Amino acid sequence: MLGIGRTGWIEKDVPACGPMDAICKPIALAPCSSDVHTVWAGALGNRHNMILGHEAVGEVVEVGSLVKDFKVGDKVLVSAITPDWGSLEAQEGYAMHSTGMLAGWKFSNFKDGVFAEFFHVNEADANLAHLPEGMDLGAACMIADMVPTGLHGVELADVQFGENVAVIGIGPVGLMSVAGAAIRGAANIYAVGSRKNCADLAREFGATEIINYKNGDIAEQILDKTHGRGVDKVVIAGGDVHTFSQAIRILKPGGKIGNVNYLGEGDNVFVPRGDWGCGMSHKQISGGLMPGGRLRSERLARLVETHRLRPEKLITHRFEGLESVEPALMLMKDKPADLIKPLVLL
Amino acid sequence: MLGIGRTGWIEKDVPACGPMDAICKPIALAPCSSDVHTVWAGALGNRHNMILGHEAVGEVVEVGSLVKDFKVGDKVLVSAITPDWGSLEAQEGYAMHSTGMLAGWKFSNFKDGVFAEFFHVNEADANLAHLPEGMDLGAACMIADMVPTGLHGVELADVQFGENVAVIGIGPVGLMSVAGAAIRGAANIYAVGSRKNCADLAREFGATEIINYKNGDIAEQILDKTHGRGVDKVVIAGGDVHTFSQAIRILKPGGKIGNVNYLGEGDNVFVPRGDWGCGMSHKQISGGLMPGGRLRSERLARLVETHRLRPEKLITHRFEGLESVEPALMLMKDKPADLIKPLVLL
Amino acid sequence: MLGIGRTGWIEKDVPACGPMDAICKPIALAPCSSDVHTVWAGALGNRHNMILGHEAVGEVVEVGSLVKDFKVGDKVLVSAITPDWGSLEAQEGYAMHSTGMLAGWKFSNFKDGVFAEFFHVNEADANLAHLPEGMDLGAACMIADMVPTGLHGVELADVQFGENVAVIGIGPVGLMSVAGAAIRGAANIYAVGSRKNCADLAREFGATEIINYKNGDIAEQILDKTHGRGVDKVVIAGGDVHTFSQAIRILKPGGKIGNVNYLGEGDNVFVPRGDWGCGMSHKQISGGLMPGGRLRSERLARLVETHRLRPEKLITHRFEGLESVEPALMLMKDKPADLIKPLVLL
Amino acid sequence: MLGIGRTGWIEKDVPACGPMDAICKPIALAPCSSDVHTVWAGALGNRHNMILGHEAVGEVVEVGSLVKDFKVGDKVLVSAITPDWGSLEAQEGYAMHSTGMLAGWKFSNFKDGVFAEFFHVNEADANLAHLPEGMDLGAACMIADMVPTGLHGVELADVQFGENVAVIGIGPVGLMSVAGAAIRGAANIYAVGSRKNCADLAREFGATEIINYKNGDIAEQILDKTHGRGVDKVVIAGGDVHTFSQAIRILKPGGKIGNVNYLGEGDNVFVPRGDWGCGMSHKQISGGLMPGGRLRSERLARLVETHRLRPEKLITHRFEGLESVEPALMLMKDKPADLIKPLVLL
Repeated sequence: MLGIGRTGWIEKDVPACGPMDAICKPIALAPCSSDVHTVWAGALGNRHNMILGHEAVGEVVEVGSLVKDFKVGDKVLVSAITPDWGSLEAQEGYAMHSTGMLAGWKFSNFKDGVFAEFFHVNEADANLAHLPEGMDLGAACMIADMVPTGLHGVELADVQFGENVAVIGIGPVGLMSVAGAAIRGAANIYAVGSRKNCADLAREFGATEIINYKNGDIAEQILDKTHGRGVDKVVIAGGDVHTFSQAIRILKPGGKIGNVNYLGEGDNVFVPRGDWGCGMSHKQISGGLMPGGRLRSERLARLVETHRLRPEKLITHRFEGLESVEPALMLMKDKPADLIKPLVLL
Repeated sequence: MLGIGRTGWIEKDVPACGPMDAICKPIALAPCSSDVHTVWAGALGNRHNMILGHEAVGEVVEVGSLVKDFKVGDKVLVSAITPDWGSLEAQEGYAMHSTGMLAGWKFSNFKDGVFAEFFHVNEADANLAHLPEGMDLGAACMIADMVPTGLHGVELADVQFGENVAVIGIGPVGLMSVAGAAIRGAANIYAVGSRKNCADLAREFGATEIINYKNGDIAEQILDKTHGRGVDKVVIAGGDVHTFSQAIRILKPGGKIGNVNYLGEGDNVFVPRGDWGCGMSHKQISGGLMPGGRLRSERLARLVETHRLRPEKLITHRFEGLESVEPALMLMKDKPADLIKPLVLL
Repeated sequence: MLGIGRTGWIEKDVPACGPMDAICKPIALAPCSSDVHTVWAGALGNRHNMILGHEAVGEVVEVGSLVKDFKVGDKVLVSAITPDWGSLEAQEGYAMHSTGMLAGWKFSNFKDGVFAEFFHVNEADANLAHLPEGMDLGAACMIADMVPTGLHGVELADVQFGENVAVIGIGPVGLMSVAGAAIRGAANIYAVGSRKNCADLAREFGATEIINYKNGDIAEQILDKTHGRGVDKVVIAGGDVHTFSQAIRILKPGGKIGNVNYLGEGDNVFVPRGDWGCGMSHKQISGGLMPGGRLRSERLARLVETHRLRPEKLITHRFEGLESVEPALMLMKDKPADLIKPLVLL
Repeated sequence: MLGIGRTGWIEKDVPACGPMDAICKPIALAPCSSDVHTVWAGALGNRHNMILGHEAVGEVVEVGSLVKDFKVGDKVLVSAITPDWGSLEAQEGYAMHSTGMLAGWKFSNFKDGVFAEFFHVNEADANLAHLPEGMDLGAACMIADMVPTGLHGVELADVQFGENVAVIGIGPVGLMSVAGAAIRGAANIYAVGSRKNCADLAREFGATEIINYKNGDIAEQILDKTHGRGVDKVVIAGGDVHTFSQAIRILKPGGKIGNVNYLGEGDNVFVPRGDWGCGMSHKQISGGLMPGGRLRSERLARLVETHRLRPEKLITHRFEGLESVEPALMLMKDKPADLIKPLVLL
C-alpha cells in the first residue's frame, strides 16, 4: 500500500529483531478483505508505504536471544493478532486489545504486514506456533485469521447444545462461523447469504437452511422458518451497521449476538428499541476482534488435524510466488463469482 | 388508570384464585416511575380501566388448593415480576420473559396491579416470600422492584473486585445500583446525577464521585477522572436511547454495560461505531428486566436483614391509607426536589 | 422391583392425574443400568413393590385441567428427570435438585417408574415434549436419559474449541459424552474403555484414540500420548470412587472434570492431594444429575433431527411388548459382549 | 532457610537483571505461614540456602532495558505470584500455573525470596504496580498475598448477592475471605474459627456468626443455624484434607467450594460420597493459587484506597529493620494468642 487506493512494491530494510522476537519469511500468504478495505476504503486512515497482509505461514530466519521454543528454520503458524502478553489488557483476558483498543492487531495496521520477503513477529514464543507436520498450507494459512475469527463469533454468541443459530454473512469468515456453530452443538443453522459457491460450502459445513435476501426480508424468512419464535443465537459475519436490527429482531429474549464483522462505515450501529424490549430483553450484544496468540493457533491446528474443521475448502484459487500477491489481492477486490479465498504459495 | 393521562378509582370484583395462586391485600405500597410512564406517557399502549401498581407488601387472604408454603394471614414480600416457572423461558434461565418478552411482568401490565383492596398472585409458592419478622415495611416494599432492579444492573455489568464503575442515573433504582456495586466489589464508583438529595444518598451508599451534567459532558468528566482510561463497567439506570453513546465512550475494551432503564421512546438505541471499536471492542451490551420470584426476594431480604443494604433510606415521603396512593402517585409524577421514593402504609 | 434382588410384575391402580399432570402409556421403553443398580445393588435403599424404569417414549391418555400444550393421543418424549419448576432450587438453575438433592429424579425413585401400562408425569407442560414426526423411537427413547446425561458431562467439563478431552467409560452414557465432546469442539478425544463394540462406536462418534486398561495404566497411557501434558478436560462416565485419582492426574492445571457417573459405593471419593496441586491447581471438580424438563428434551430432539447426534446407534437389541421388559432388563444385568443398549417397543 | 528446620542469614550476590526485569530493595516485609511450612514442615521439599519471603513492598534499584513503566526509585507493590505472561497457561487464563502447576509462584520456591537486601522481579512491567501515594505500608504489604489469596477464595466460590457463605479458617487469609465475601454480596457469613482476636476482626469485617469447633461439630452448628438447609457457598482458608468433608456436608446442591488453603499433608483429599450426592449433587469443588501480576495488584490497591477493604487491621505486630525478619518469622511459627500478622518496616 502506497496510499489510499494505490498499491505497489516498495523496498524496505529487513526489520530488526528484539530479544523476544523473530523474523520470518513467508511460505504461504493470503490476502484478506480487510486488506482491500485498508487500501481502497481507507478503513484505517491514510497510511503510506505500509506493507499489507496479516495471513501467513512462515519460516523462521532469525530469533531473539530470549526466544526459547523456536529456532531458525522452524515452520510456523503466525497469528494475525500478536498481543503484548504482559499488558494489563492481556492480564484481564483481552489480549487483542493490549495497550489499546484493537492494538493487538499489529500487522498491516501499526507495523508492516506479511506480504514481504521478511516480516517481524513480536513475542515469538507467545505468538508463533509450530506448523504441524503434513498440514496443508492452505488450511494452515486460514488459521491465521479466518478460522479464529469465524469461531470467535460462535464463542461470543455462546452457542449451546441444540440451539438454533443464524449466521449472517457467509464469506470465508462466516463459513467458518457456520462450521464452528456445527461443532459447538448448534442444531438448526440458518446461513444468510446469496452466492452459490458459498451457500454450497455452508451446507457442507453444517448449515441446515440457506437464507437468501433475494427471496425477501431475511428476518421475515427466519421468523417464518422458526414459527415466529426466532433463534437462540446470532453470529454476525457480514453486513453493516443496519444488520444488527435484523439480528435483534430474529433473536429470542435471552439470546446473544456475536459480531465479528468489521464495521467500516456509519456513525452509529442501530439497535431497534422495540425489538430490543425497551432495553429489557436480555438480548446481549457482543462483538470483538478474535483472540490471537500461540495457544489459540495450537488449538485450532488440532481441530484441523483431527478433521473437525476443513478450512482448506475455503481456498478456491491458488497462486505461486511473492509476485502473485498482487493479482491475488486484486481478485479479493473484484470478487468474481467463483471466489471464496485465494492462497499464494512461496 | 382509566386511560392514557387519566387516573381514578374503579370498582372491580375480587380476582379469582386458581389452585396454585394466592389473593393478597396490601399492607404497604409504593408507586413507581413506570406507573407514571404507563399513565402519562402511554408506555405500554392504551390500557383502559387497569389497576396500577406493582410494588407491594401484602397479607395473604386466600390460597389455592395446591399452595403449600403460604396460608391465610401470612405477611409476604411480593415480587413485581411473577413468572410462570414451568415455561420454556424459565427453564432457560429467563423467567422474566416467561411466555414472551417481558411477560413475567404481569402486575399493571397484563393484569390488574396491586393498588387495590385485593390483588392476585400467580404461582404463590414460587412468587411470594415470607416477610421476615421485624423488617421495616419501607425496606420490604423496596424489595419488590427497586432493590432487584438496581442490583440486576450490577449483575448484568458483571462487576468484579476492584473495578471502576459508572452508574448513570441516581433515582431510586440507580441508587440501589450504586449500593449494589459497592457490595459487589467495585472500587471507584462514579455516580451520574444532579439532584442533591440523590447525590448525598449515593455517597452514603458508596459512590466515590458524583458526576453532574451541569459541570460539562459526563463522558469527558469521567474520562478526565480516570486519566483517559475509562471505567471497567457501566450500569445504566436512567437516561434515554442516547445514553449508550456516553456509556460506550467511557468504557474500556472488554468492559460491560448493564442496562436496567426502561427505554420509553425512540426508534433506535444508538451505539457509536467508532467508540465501539467498529464492532470489535468487546464492549458488551446487556440489558434486562430484573429477575422475579421467591428465591430472589428471599436473598434480597437477607441483604436487608444483615444490614448490607438499607433500601428504607430511599423513602422520603410516607403516607397512610389506600386513598393516599393517588397523592403518592402524583408526587412521583411531579418529582419535587426532596423526593426519592414515597411509601403508602395501610 | 419387589425388593432388593427380586423383580416381578405387580398390579397397581392407574395413578391419579393432578391439574398440571398427565398420565401416559409407554410406546417405547429402555432399561438402564441404574435400574440394575436399584434392584441388585440396592443403590437407593430397600424399596418394595416399586415399578422400575425411567426411559420411555409415551402417548398421553389423560391430562389435568391446567395443562395447555398436550392433549390425549399426543406422542411424547418423557424426560427421566421431571422437576418441580417453581421450587427454589429450580429458580436457582438446579431444577434436578428441586425440593432436595437429586429429587428431580422421581421415576423409579420417589414414585413408580415407566415400566407399566400407565405412568404419571408431573407438570406435564414443563416435563413432556412433543415427539417429532418421523423420529426413530430408539433415538427418541435415548433422549430420556442417555443423551442428556452424556452431554451434561461435556457441559460440566466445559469443553472448548480445540481442547483435548478424555472420556472415561464408554457405555451408552460415555458414548454420548464422546459424541457430545465432538460436537462441542473437542480436538483429540481419548475414550477409555475395553469392549470392542463400544470402542468401535466411540470411534464412529468422534473418539480419536481408544485407551484400554488392558494395555496398562490408563493415566500413563494418556500422559504418554499427550507428551506428558495431559488433557484439558475429563468427562467421567464410568468407574468408581477411585476413578477421580486418574482423572486428576491426567488433567492440566486449570482443567475441569465433569462427572455423570452415579457412584454407588464407597465412603469417600479420593482426590489425590499432590496431583491436585495441594488444593491450588485450579483443577475443578463438578458432577451432577442431568437437567430434565421440556426445553432440554426439545433441544436434544433437534440435535437428532439435524443428524448431529445419532443415539439410535446405541441400540443393539430390540424387543417387542411390555412383557419383554423383563428379558431386556436381564440383558442389562448380564451384559453380553454385543450389548450396548436394549429397546422395547410396544 | 539453610535447610529443613534451619534458618539463618547468608551472603549472596545481587541477582542479575534481565532486559524485562527489575531489582528491588524491600521497604516493608511480612513473613507468611507458608514460609513457616517451607522451613519447618519442608512443604516444598528439601531446599538449601534459599532466601525466604514473598510478601514485600519494594523500591526499584535497577530496571532492564525493555522495562517501560518503572524506573529506579519507584516504590512498588510486588505480587507474591509473578507469572510468565506469554506462556500458554497465562494465555489460557491461568497465569499462576505458567510453565507448570503452581510455577507462577517463584519467590522462595523456585528462586530466592524477598527477605534480602535486594530481590529480583521477572517481567517488571507486568508484575509490579506503583505504590499509591499515602498508602499504609502494612496494607500495601498485604496486597502481595493475603488480600489476593483471601479474595480469590471468594471468586472461586462465586459468591452472589444475598447468598449465605461459610468461611472455614480465619487466619489472615480467611479474614480477607470474610471481608471479600461481604463486599461481594454475601448475606450471612459463618466464620469458622476459635481465636478471639481473629473472631473479633471477622465480625468487624462482616461475619454474622462465629462458629467455634469448641462448641461442637462445625457442620452441625452451621446446619442448625441454617435450619438444615446449609449454605450456598464455602470458602476454605484453613484446615486440612478432612475439611472438605464438612464443607461438602454443609453445602446445598448447586453450591460451590473455593479452596485457597495450601494442603501440606495427606495422600488424598476426602470427598464424602453420600453428601456429594453420589457424584450427582452439582456441589462444585475448586481450589487455586491466587492470581498474581500487576492488574490484580492495582485493583486490590484501589479497594484499599476507597476503604472498601482495610487489610492493615490484620497487622498486630510491627518491627523495624531487616534483622527483625527473623523474630517476625519466629512469631509466625510460635503463633502467640494476640498474633494475626507481623510486619517489618525497613
